[in-house]
Amino acid sequence: MAGEVFTGIERAELPVIDGLAECGVATVHEAQGRTGLLAAYMRPIYPGARIAGSAVTISAPPGDNWMVHVAIEQLQFGDVLLLAPTSPSTDGYFGDLLATSAMSRGCRALVIDAGVRDVRDLTQMGFPVWSKAVHAQGTVKATLGSVNVPVVCADALVNPGDVVVADDDGVCIVPRAAAAAVLEKARLREANEEIKRRKLAAGELGLDIYDMRGKLADMGLKYV
Amino acid sequence: MAGEVFTGIERAELPVIDGLAECGVATVHEAQGRTGLLAAYMRPIYPGARIAGSAVTISAPPGDNWMVHVAIEQLQFGDVLLLAPTSPSTDGYFGDLLATSAMSRGCRALVIDAGVRDVRDLTQMGFPVWSKAVHAQGTVKATLGSVNVPVVCADALVNPGDVVVADDDGVCIVPRAAAAAVLEKARLREANEEIKRRKLAAGELGLDIYDMRGKLADMGLKYV
Amino acid sequence: MAGEVFTGIERAELPVIDGLAECGVATVHEAQGRTGLLAAYMRPIYPGARIAGSAVTISAPPGDNWMVHVAIEQLQFGDVLLLAPTSPSTDGYFGDLLATSAMSRGCRALVIDAGVRDVRDLTQMGFPVWSKAVHAQGTVKATLGSVNVPVVCADALVNPGDVVVADDDGVCIVPRAAAAAVLEKARLREANEEIKRRKLAAGELGLDIYDMRGKLADMGLKYV
Amino acid sequence: MAGEVFTGIERAELPVIDGLAECGVATVHEAQGRTGLLAAYMRPIYPGARIAGSAVTISAPPGDNWMVHVAIEQLQFGDVLLLAPTSPSTDGYFGDLLATSAMSRGCRALVIDAGVRDVRDLTQMGFPVWSKAVHAQGTVKATLGSVNVPVVCADALVNPGDVVVADDDGVCIVPRAAAAAVLEKARLREANEEIKRRKLAAGELGLDIYDMRGKLADMGLKYV
Amino acid sequence: MAGEVFTGIERAELPVIDGLAECGVATVHEAQGRTGLLAAYMRPIYPGARIAGSAVTISAPPGDNWMVHVAIEQLQFGDVLLLAPTSPSTDGYFGDLLATSAMSRGCRALVIDAGVRDVRDLTQMGFPVWSKAVHAQGTVKATLGSVNVPVVCADALVNPGDVVVADDDGVCIVPRAAAAAVLEKARLREANEEIKRRKLAAGELGLDIYDMRGKLADMGLKYV
Amino acid sequence: MAGEVFTGIERAELPVIDGLAECGVATVHEAQGRTGLLAAYMRPIYPGARIAGSAVTISAPPGDNWMVHVAIEQLQFGDVLLLAPTSPSTDGYFGDLLATSAMSRGCRALVIDAGVRDVRDLTQMGFPVWSKAVHAQGTVKATLGSVNVPVVCADALVNPGDVVVADDDGVCIVPRAAAAAVLEKARLREANEEIKRRKLAAGELGLDIYDMRGKLADMGLKYV
Repeated sequence: MAGEVFTGIERAELPVIDGLAECGVATVHEAQGRTGLLAAYMRPIYPGARIAGSAVTISAPPGDNWMVHVAIEQLQFGDVLLLAPTSPSTDGYFGDLLATSAMSRGCRALVIDAGVRDVRDLTQMGFPVWSKAVHAQGTVKATLGSVNVPVVCADALVNPGDVVVADDDGVCIVPRAAAAAVLEKARLREANEEIKRRKLAAGELGLDIYDMRGKLADMGLKYV
Repeated sequence: MAGEVFTGIERAELPVIDGLAECGVATVHEAQGRTGLLAAYMRPIYPGARIAGSAVTISAPPGDNWMVHVAIEQLQFGDVLLLAPTSPSTDGYFGDLLATSAMSRGCRALVIDAGVRDVRDLTQMGFPVWSKAVHAQGTVKATLGSVNVPVVCADALVNPGDVVVADDDGVCIVPRAAAAAVLEKARLREANEEIKRRKLAAGELGLDIYDMRGKLADMGLKYV
Repeated sequence: MAGEVFTGIERAELPVIDGLAECGVATVHEAQGRTGLLAAYMRPIYPGARIAGSAVTISAPPGDNWMVHVAIEQLQFGDVLLLAPTSPSTDGYFGDLLATSAMSRGCRALVIDAGVRDVRDLTQMGFPVWSKAVHAQGTVKATLGSVNVPVVCADALVNPGDVVVADDDGVCIVPRAAAAAVLEKARLREANEEIKRRKLAAGELGLDIYDMRGKLADMGLKYV
Repeated sequence: MAGEVFTGIERAELPVIDGLAECGVATVHEAQGRTGLLAAYMRPIYPGARIAGSAVTISAPPGDNWMVHVAIEQLQFGDVLLLAPTSPSTDGYFGDLLATSAMSRGCRALVIDAGVRDVRDLTQMGFPVWSKAVHAQGTVKATLGSVNVPVVCADALVNPGDVVVADDDGVCIVPRAAAAAVLEKARLREANEEIKRRKLAAGELGLDIYDMRGKLADMGLKYV
Repeated sequence: MAGEVFTGIERAELPVIDGLAECGVATVHEAQGRTGLLAAYMRPIYPGARIAGSAVTISAPPGDNWMVHVAIEQLQFGDVLLLAPTSPSTDGYFGDLLATSAMSRGCRALVIDAGVRDVRDLTQMGFPVWSKAVHAQGTVKATLGSVNVPVVCADALVNPGDVVVADDDGVCIVPRAAAAAVLEKARLREANEEIKRRKLAAGELGLDIYDMRGKLADMGLKYV
Repeated sequence: MAGEVFTGIERAELPVIDGLAECGVATVHEAQGRTGLLAAYMRPIYPGARIAGSAVTISAPPGDNWMVHVAIEQLQFGDVLLLAPTSPSTDGYFGDLLATSAMSRGCRALVIDAGVRDVRDLTQMGFPVWSKAVHAQGTVKATLGSVNVPVVCADALVNPGDVVVADDDGVCIVPRAAAAAVLEKARLREANEEIKRRKLAAGELGLDIYDMRGKLADMGLKYV
């Protein structure tokens, strides 16, 4: 089943993608009904990056990064490489040379359910990566995988062209077709949160703002 | 058994608490006989914070942060929120809105045997968190837990009002009643360490300073 | 079998050691045929350090750091302490006092398949550590281990005097006798990589630079 | 997005399903191109069970088993309950009472990316379970999930009505529409394997049976 | 703080203890309000054992089983040894010799948040163990711990004399003073469960038996 | 560096090997000074097997079992296959066909720091395996490894021809040259243990048999 590269994938519109990046992972995740998060072990190689882009997906064998080269040719401006190995791996599939190549084609980040290396160089280049591991372990180029097929990456289903949103809180996938609607809801949440933030900063309690006292008492909460 | 909020907890005196923060986790842990440490997986969301405070404890269901709102009302200046889920969780119970609320009531930090989110915002606000995970995963408000009950948090027993000491080395719990005595011992250790540090920096060996050579030889150590 | 200290270990030449540090872990690992890496869980306590040194090895019981004192006496300028516990441990065997002592003898770093503490102080002192854990958990001095014996550390065999190379990508061991030859190969790789980096930055694809298209087609890769 | 129960799911034909059970997980997995496996941590509660059935999927909150009751009403003869929590959990969602109910409706097994309890009773009843954990931890009934929606379970995508094949080697998902074709390929593999097994038992080497010597030599394998 | 042996601990009455064993872990855990469970990683070395006994607790250093010998002298008929290391360990603290000694004093089982060895012999002797690991790794006798002090064992607080209940579902701690009341509630649950089991076996649905349909509809559950 | 097969390895004498199997892992491990154990995660696929044999070692890429075929040709009566992947893997490198082939050449077991499949068949054939995982995940035959080279397997160094001892307590490696001497010490331990076992069964305490009371008192143990 491996050995296929899909070349004509659809993408969401860039202003929508960029809007989702501004909202950030926690807000986007809530806005789409608490779905789409990758597992908590997916961590950024440096703090502070906040990006969104269209997923160019890679299904790759363990310890074999051949398909990354194939995928890079498919990149467009605003894309994110997203790699899921076909069995668990922490090998370093990706380093500064591949990042140089990906950046030259407009790639914004790598999300990889495996390892990455050359992280000092990647940090200096400003190429963010969310990964399961940082490890220098080298890989081979011996077996085919596929590019732009649906993959399960760190507990989440990702279709090629879905929007990948990533920041210090993790990585969230927004289905392409839902991206505009999710952005709208996310912006509403942000507006609401701003109002709440001011009240809370002024010392008002969530118990009162969200009117929780009655419901808690009904459930049986007792003060001793 | 869940559904209770204890409101009148006792706390250690603030000068004692602040003294323990100055000593730091490793020294305090040694000073009280190598007890009270939380598990090694409890890590700070940013480096450099060093705090101590009185524990306001939360026992919460997995994936349900309702009790955090209840606990915030119980906070006094100098307190630390400490949350233990009733079964293992990496969900993001706590973010920047709750931190805004907690800070407005004088809370110094969160210690949570689960996940936290909005870590970029929390870092910018200077609200330190020690957690098992960073994850955007949202939670619900559907089931009661308890506030200010004894909890087991990351392998340590914590009673409400115990002193929580936390820095880059982890988190240590000092029983409230022992806090002043532990502080005294910790300061003695610090004084002793300063003398040793100078000797070691000057090239003296621990083998000689601590007079270990004879005992090592008695145990059978051989130089080849 | 424990209880031996080997005092007359051989070391690689310092210019070779320093050359390996410049090349970095990923390049050195590739240059010696993708061998010698420690496990991915070995992480630096702060980013940016890049060192190499001769291994002074320690085989220590779980939760017992007595042998660290013994090992420090064996240190020479340019050495690295490398500790493997005889059964898994995350205890904090090493802190700022031991680092002060080790630095005064020219030690460049600690690599420990266990825990470390006082990491804020170690960071300020500029003493890098690669470890499995950061934990304040104290240790005892009750049982003998050995110094400068072969150990298995985080999945890698280390002989005393082997070259330890460490940076943000992890830790790699170069056998002492192979150090000069590995350095030569590593420098060749670096030169080659620089040429490739320029081509990739200019938009050339790895598929073309490495002439992969034919082989991929032969293997059956299909564009859809 | 939670709170939906899809009632009219399609299923594969029972003879196809039963044929896949006979072939077993390893053969089915190979026959469909090495895809569809759940993660290695999914283990049977007792050895020797080998089943297949149509997936009735459950997406449930952590520590909340309300939706299991809802899903049981949707069961038909030959079905398998498959539960994926919306965030990681090891809680015991399922025990002997729920198994009694599920068995009375023809259910063949439970596959759960979480915990199970009453495993002694389940073993005596002959109701097999593949789970991430065995744990007595109780759950609540407070929050909605969904039934018969697509879920990601232990690294695999599962659509309702897909065929779940499970034995001592783990769990494999066969898409409903592909079930008949996969069965055909699996039976071909079995026939081929029987011939090879006899040759190997007679002392012939895989090196010769699969004609590997030339290719290994071409790749550079050397006998020393 | 280590180095204390408490000799005069109180125990629950044997008929109560034996009653709790009959009810089993899941029922007892529910009967006392879903508290007291040890972590899910605590597994029996062989299936089918179901015991209860009074906890003789051991706080032991990592890799040091000296205190087990001390604790065995404190055993009475109907007791259970329960060991918590002072830092994480998988070492084999206990084997067939210690089991022979413990059994000769009426000990019913070992619960250990570390490793055990000689498991084939222990199985043949019928001495059940719940442990975190099975490992032959030997231990030393060099450092003091304590016997019959409160310990945190695998996420649960255990006081000496508390009732330890263990079966294939894990391990649950019942506070000594609550044992009789918990037994009463557990027996009530068992009676209720028997009635439900018959209804469910006859094909009645939990949705109807527990009258859930209205509440689910109120919460917004939709059938599609 | 990969791509080498060493054909003329030396082995220990069969009576010595068989004697080590009789002693079992825990005794052998103690007899050689508490060294040589593989990590605790290496577990048997079925209980009760107790074997020893000469290691035919395999260094294999992740997810690639080609070298197993090469290694089988090197097997002699009384050997054990021992596979270490070059980076972590849980893939199922080995199943019933390879076991059939290995058994036909006199192989006694497989020890693999990765996954195994067809475990029901392997159990029925009586071919024991100690592994890190059971998983049906298939592998490829695309990249060279080596046979009969030194490997680090699950934390232990193994040279080809070393004696592998394995039972329910795990796996222990005895260096070939030390095998006879270790066997002698192991038998002495067994004789001593038998005497102690009788005393302990009769109710004597280890505290008295090993004369520990004085030393414990000297260390400061207090009875309260």
